[in-house]
Amino acid sequence: MKAVVYGGPGDKQWREVPDPVIADPRDAVIRVDAVTICGTDLHILGGDVPEVTPGRILGHEAVGTVVEVGAAVAGLTAGDKVLASCISACGLCAYCRKGSYGQCRGGGGWILGHLVDGVQAQYARLPLADLSTYKLPPGIPDDVAVLLADILPTAYEVGVLNGQVRPGETVVVVGAGPIGLAAILTAKLYSPSHIVAVDTAESRLQAAKQFGADIVLRPDDDPRALVGSVTDGLGADVAIEAVGVPESFELCAALVRPGGRVANVGVHGKPATLHLEDLWIRDVTITTGLVDTYSTPTLLKMLAAGQLDVGHMVTHRFGLDEFMSAYDVFAKPAQTGALKVVLSRG
Amino acid sequence: MKAVVYGGPGDKQWREVPDPVIADPRDAVIRVDAVTICGTDLHILGGDVPEVTPGRILGHEAVGTVVEVGAAVAGLTAGDKVLASCISACGLCAYCRKGSYGQCRGGGGWILGHLVDGVQAQYARLPLADLSTYKLPPGIPDDVAVLLADILPTAYEVGVLNGQVRPGETVVVVGAGPIGLAAILTAKLYSPSHIVAVDTAESRLQAAKQFGADIVLRPDDDPRALVGSVTDGLGADVAIEAVGVPESFELCAALVRPGGRVANVGVHGKPATLHLEDLWIRDVTITTGLVDTYSTPTLLKMLAAGQLDVGHMVTHRFGLDEFMSAYDVFAKPAQTGALKVVLSRG
Amino acid sequence: MKAVVYGGPGDKQWREVPDPVIADPRDAVIRVDAVTICGTDLHILGGDVPEVTPGRILGHEAVGTVVEVGAAVAGLTAGDKVLASCISACGLCAYCRKGSYGQCRGGGGWILGHLVDGVQAQYARLPLADLSTYKLPPGIPDDVAVLLADILPTAYEVGVLNGQVRPGETVVVVGAGPIGLAAILTAKLYSPSHIVAVDTAESRLQAAKQFGADIVLRPDDDPRALVGSVTDGLGADVAIEAVGVPESFELCAALVRPGGRVANVGVHGKPATLHLEDLWIRDVTITTGLVDTYSTPTLLKMLAAGQLDVGHMVTHRFGLDEFMSAYDVFAKPAQTGALKVVLSRG
Amino acid sequence: MKAVVYGGPGDKQWREVPDPVIADPRDAVIRVDAVTICGTDLHILGGDVPEVTPGRILGHEAVGTVVEVGAAVAGLTAGDKVLASCISACGLCAYCRKGSYGQCRGGGGWILGHLVDGVQAQYARLPLADLSTYKLPPGIPDDVAVLLADILPTAYEVGVLNGQVRPGETVVVVGAGPIGLAAILTAKLYSPSHIVAVDTAESRLQAAKQFGADIVLRPDDDPRALVGSVTDGLGADVAIEAVGVPESFELCAALVRPGGRVANVGVHGKPATLHLEDLWIRDVTITTGLVDTYSTPTLLKMLAAGQLDVGHMVTHRFGLDEFMSAYDVFAKPAQTGALKVVLSRG
Repeated sequence: MKAVVYGGPGDKQWREVPDPVIADPRDAVIRVDAVTICGTDLHILGGDVPEVTPGRILGHEAVGTVVEVGAAVAGLTAGDKVLASCISACGLCAYCRKGSYGQCRGGGGWILGHLVDGVQAQYARLPLADLSTYKLPPGIPDDVAVLLADILPTAYEVGVLNGQVRPGETVVVVGAGPIGLAAILTAKLYSPSHIVAVDTAESRLQAAKQFGADIVLRPDDDPRALVGSVTDGLGADVAIEAVGVPESFELCAALVRPGGRVANVGVHGKPATLHLEDLWIRDVTITTGLVDTYSTPTLLKMLAAGQLDVGHMVTHRFGLDEFMSAYDVFAKPAQTGALKVVLSRG
Repeated sequence: MKAVVYGGPGDKQWREVPDPVIADPRDAVIRVDAVTICGTDLHILGGDVPEVTPGRILGHEAVGTVVEVGAAVAGLTAGDKVLASCISACGLCAYCRKGSYGQCRGGGGWILGHLVDGVQAQYARLPLADLSTYKLPPGIPDDVAVLLADILPTAYEVGVLNGQVRPGETVVVVGAGPIGLAAILTAKLYSPSHIVAVDTAESRLQAAKQFGADIVLRPDDDPRALVGSVTDGLGADVAIEAVGVPESFELCAALVRPGGRVANVGVHGKPATLHLEDLWIRDVTITTGLVDTYSTPTLLKMLAAGQLDVGHMVTHRFGLDEFMSAYDVFAKPAQTGALKVVLSRG
Repeated sequence: MKAVVYGGPGDKQWREVPDPVIADPRDAVIRVDAVTICGTDLHILGGDVPEVTPGRILGHEAVGTVVEVGAAVAGLTAGDKVLASCISACGLCAYCRKGSYGQCRGGGGWILGHLVDGVQAQYARLPLADLSTYKLPPGIPDDVAVLLADILPTAYEVGVLNGQVRPGETVVVVGAGPIGLAAILTAKLYSPSHIVAVDTAESRLQAAKQFGADIVLRPDDDPRALVGSVTDGLGADVAIEAVGVPESFELCAALVRPGGRVANVGVHGKPATLHLEDLWIRDVTITTGLVDTYSTPTLLKMLAAGQLDVGHMVTHRFGLDEFMSAYDVFAKPAQTGALKVVLSRG
Repeated sequence: MKAVVYGGPGDKQWREVPDPVIADPRDAVIRVDAVTICGTDLHILGGDVPEVTPGRILGHEAVGTVVEVGAAVAGLTAGDKVLASCISACGLCAYCRKGSYGQCRGGGGWILGHLVDGVQAQYARLPLADLSTYKLPPGIPDDVAVLLADILPTAYEVGVLNGQVRPGETVVVVGAGPIGLAAILTAKLYSPSHIVAVDTAESRLQAAKQFGADIVLRPDDDPRALVGSVTDGLGADVAIEAVGVPESFELCAALVRPGGRVANVGVHGKPATLHLEDLWIRDVTITTGLVDTYSTPTLLKMLAAGQLDVGHMVTHRFGLDEFMSAYDVFAKPAQTGALKVVLSRG
C-alpha cells in the first residue's frame, strides 16, 4: 500500500510501504476511507517532536472500514465503519479506568503517527482497537465524521469542559484556527452570552463569526478593554488558549476575571510566564490537557442529530493519493484560507 | 488607645492613637482580646505592599469582644465574643452572593490592616461587621480561636479544598511555615495516604512531622525521586505551594502526576515560569486564591469538637502591649523557632 | 391602597387596606408596576397552605419601583426599578452564606404572600430588601421581567441545574404548565438532544413544542416506550417533575435510565411511592428544592441579551385593578389557554 | 471440585460439580483461597431473587489465585493473587467507559453467583477477568482482602461518596450490620464531626462504637430529637440507609436537614413512601446505587497502608469445606454475633 512516510525534518513522501498486519490480538486493521492533517503533523515535520523517527507513517485522524480484527477484539468485526480516534486506550490502567484515555499507561494515549504508524495511508493498524475506535452511525459523511477523530473532542473536552463554560458567561477564545473554531462551536452548546475570538488573521476572525463568535478582534486591539466593556470591567469567565505560544497563554491569563478559568488547549514548545504576583490573589483556575475522547460518543450522537454544524470546517477536499498537495494547502492557511483539509478514498 | 502604627518601610510603633468609632451603620467596634502577626505584616513592613500608607494600623487576625455596633448591624450586639476575620464582606455584590467574600466588590475583601486600620490595637473598628465576624462558641481559648482568623481557613480553602485532596492520595506541601503546617493539619481531614513536606529548615520539618507529614525532606533531597517512590513513579496527586517564591511554585508543578493539581497558597511578588512545554499534555489543574472564609464556621465547629489539634501552632505568647518584642520573635523564626505568636489582653 | 386580601378558603377580595410602611430597617416599600399570579396562590385559595391566615395580602412575583428604604438597606434607593423576588434572604444565616436563600433561617425564604403580606397590591413592603430584590437593567419590559420573580429561576435551578442537564442528553419534562414550559426553555441552554414533554392537555403540548420540546405526548401514550425509542432503550438522562402529584413523580422515576436524575419541581400535597425495589440498583439521583434565586442575576443578563425567548409565556394582560378577572382566567387554563397572566399599572 | 450449589428456595448444598473451564477468551479461572457470604446470598436462599436458578453456584466475594486465563486476557497470568470483585465489567459499553461498572451493558455488572456460577467453590470461572479482578499487593491477609470484594467499596461508593460526606458534618447510618459498619469506617475518612448509628440490636450498636460511631441509638429512642440536639435542630447532613426496608429509608429521609443527602445502600424488596409533601421544599438529594468498584484500587492501597482498620469485621473463620456451618452462623447474627464470616483454604 501507499502511505505518508516521515523521513526526518522537512521530509515526507507518499510512497509504497508494506501492508499493515495484526501484530497483537487487540489490533484491528482498517481500510482508510477519509483522513485529515493536523497542525501537529506540521510540528513533526518541523522536527519539533523528536520521538517521531524517520520511517514513521504519519496521521492520527481517520475514518475507515474494519478489514481484520485480532483475537482479543470484542467489539468490532470486519466491515464495521469506524472512527479511528487520535487516542488509543488499553482500558485497564488506572487512568483508563477513570476515562482518562489520553494518559493511558498501558500502551495507549496518543500513539498513532507518533509512536506507531499512523493513518495517512491506504490501510492502517489500530492498536487496542476496542477502545480506540467508535462505530459510526449511518448518515454521517466521512469528511464530517473525521472531524471527531481529534479536533472536536479536543476543543470540547480540553477547552469547553475543562473551562467549565456556563450559560450567560463570557468566553474568550485566543486563536481562531481549526481548534479555536471548534472551541467556539462547542462552547455554544452551553449558551454563553458572549464569545470573543482573538486572532491575527482577518480570514480567521471572519470564520470565527461564522462559527458563533459575537465579538472578534486582533491581539493589538486592546482585548482587555474590549472584554472589560462587556463584563462590567471584571474580565472573561473563561479564556481558552488555542494557539500554543507563550504570548497567547499570557493573554488568556490577563483576560480572565477574578474567579475565572484558563483552559489551555494549545500544544506548547516553550515555557510561558505565569504572573503569580497578580494571579495569586485572583482565584484563577488554569487547566491543561490532552484529549481523552470521553466525549466522542456524545459528539457523535449530536453530529448525527444535526446539533453540530461543522460544515464550514472542511475547506479543501482531496483524493487519498493527493497528500503532497493537501499538505501544501494546509501548511499555508494565510494564502489558501485552509481550515481542515480532508482526503477521501474515491 | 494604643496600636501598632505603620510609619513607612521598616517603621512601626506601638503608640497612642484616637479610639475607633462607628463610621458607617454596618460597622462594629471591638475590644481586642487576642491578636497575632501574619507573614504579610512583615511584607508590609518590608515595603512590598505599597497600598498600605503611613499611619495605617496593622493587623488582620484577632479575637475580640463587641463594644458597639452600627444601626445596620443585624447579627451582633455589645458583649458578643467574636472572631475578627481577615476578610470583610458586603454580602451584596455578585462575588459575596456566591460566597467568594475574598473577592468582594462592595468594600470588603482583605481590607483590615491594609486599606483600613487593622486589629493590632487595643480596640478596632470592623467594617461590614455582620459578615466579617464569627461568634465564638464557648470553650475555645482566645489564642486558639485567633488561628481561625486567617491561617487555618486560608490553608484549608486555598490549599486543601482547591487542591481537592481525597482519601488515599499523596499530597506534597512545599513550605512548612505556619501556613504550610496548617495545610498539613487540614489535609489530614481527607485521609491522604502520604503527606510529604518540603522545607529548608530542619526545625520546620520536625514541626511538619508533628502536624502529620509522614515524609519530610529538603528541596535538594531530590523530591521528585522521593515522591515518585511512593506513587509508582507518577508524582503527587496534589502539590500545595505555601512559600510564595517562583522556585517553590515550579517545584510543585514538577511534582504532580498527570491529572494532578497544584494549589497555590503563597503570596507572590514575582512571576514564575510555567513549563507549558511539559505541562500542556499532562492534564494539570493549577489554582490560586485568596481565602473567602466560607469554611470558617465549619472549622470553628471542628475546633470546638476537638477535631483540630492546633495546640503546637502557637509557640510564643505576649501581653497586648508587647508588640515590639512579638514582632522581633516572629521575624526571626530560624533563631526563635517561632510559628505563630499571640498577644493577649492580660 | 388596594390589595388582594385572602379571607379564608375560596375567599379573596381586591379591597382597600392600609398602605405598607417600613417596619424594620432592612425593609423597602415598592410601588407595584407589574405582578402575576402563581399556581401556589390557587393552592392557598384552595385552603392547602394553612399557614396563610385570613387577612393576608397574596402574591410573591412582582416588578416595582422603590418608594422608600429602611436605614439598614445598603443597595437600594428610592426610584430604583426592581424585581421583587419570591424569595427573601437575610444574608447572614448559614444557608444564606452558601447562597441557599430559599432555606434562609433568618426570617427569609418564601415569606411574601405567605407569612407576610405580598405583592398583589398597589404597594408592598419587601423585608430584607437588599437580598430580596434585583435591580432591573433598562430595556426589559415589566411583563417580561416579572417572569424572573419565580417561574424562570425555579424551573432553571430546581429543574435544569439540579437535574444536571448536559449537551446531547434526553430530558423529559412531565407537566407542560408554565413551570414545565420554563424548564423546557431553560433546559435548551444546555443543548440536550431531545426534550420530551408529557401533559394531558393538547394546548399545553402545543405550547411545549413552541418552547422547544421536540417530542410531546400524553401520559397514556406509553412514555416509557417512546423515551426508550430515542435512548437505545435505556431511559431519559433527566426527568423533571413539574406538576406536583404522586403520579407524575412516579412517572419521572420510571422514565430515567440507570444513572439518571429526577428533579422534582412540583409542589406536592401528598406522599408518592418510591419503588426502591427497582431503583435501589439503578444509580438514580432524586432532588427536591425550593428556588434559591442564585441564578436570577444570570437569567436577567441573558434576558437583557435576548437569549431567553419568553415572549409566549404571558398569554393574558390586565390592569392592576382587574385581579378578580385575572384570577378567573388563570384558574381555568383548559378553557382560557392561560399560561401566565400579568397585571400592570396603567 | 466442590461448591455451594443453590437448589431452590431454602436449599443449598456443598457438593461435587464439574471444574470450571475457560468458556470465553476473556475468562480467567481461579483457585479460591478465601471467600465470604453476603446478606444477598441469604436473600437468594429465601427465594427473593428469582433470576437465580437451581443449580447455580453461589457467592460473589473471594480472593483467589489465577490458574488459567483466556486468550484475550491482557492483565493477568497464572499465579497472580487476585481479588475477585462482586462486579464484572466489559470495559467497552457506555457505562463501563464512564467507570459505572455496576451498570455494565456488555455482560458484566453483578453476575457472579447470580447470573453465572459464583465463587463459593474450590475453583471459579471469572468472566471479563481483566476488569473484574484486582491484583493484590503483598502483605494483605486473604481474610482482610476479601472484604474489598463487595462490602467496603459498596459502603464507600454508594454510602459515603454518593452521600458526599464532608469534614465537620453529621452523618447518620441506619443499620449497623456489616455494610453499615463499613459505611461508618469509611465515612471517617472524611472526618465528620458526628457519626450516629441506629440499629435495633445492642451488639451491633456496640460494634458501631468500635468502628467509629460516637452516638448510637435504637429507632425507638427518638432519633430525630437526638440528631437535632447535635445539629442546632436542623437534622443530619447525610443519612445512609444500610438495611433495605421501607422504615429505615423513611427514617433517613426524616432525619436529614434541608439541603441534606440520603444515600441508599440497602437492597430493597418493597417500595417505600416518599413524603414529598414535606420534602419538596427541603432541597434534599436522594441517591441509590449498585457498587461500581471504581474505589477498589484506592481502598486496596489504603488497606495496604494500614489506613483502614477492618480487623473487627471478621468475627468467624472456617475452612473452605465448612460452608454449611458458616451459613448457619452467618444467618443468625443475633445469636452468634456474626458480622462477616470468612472461609479459607487451609
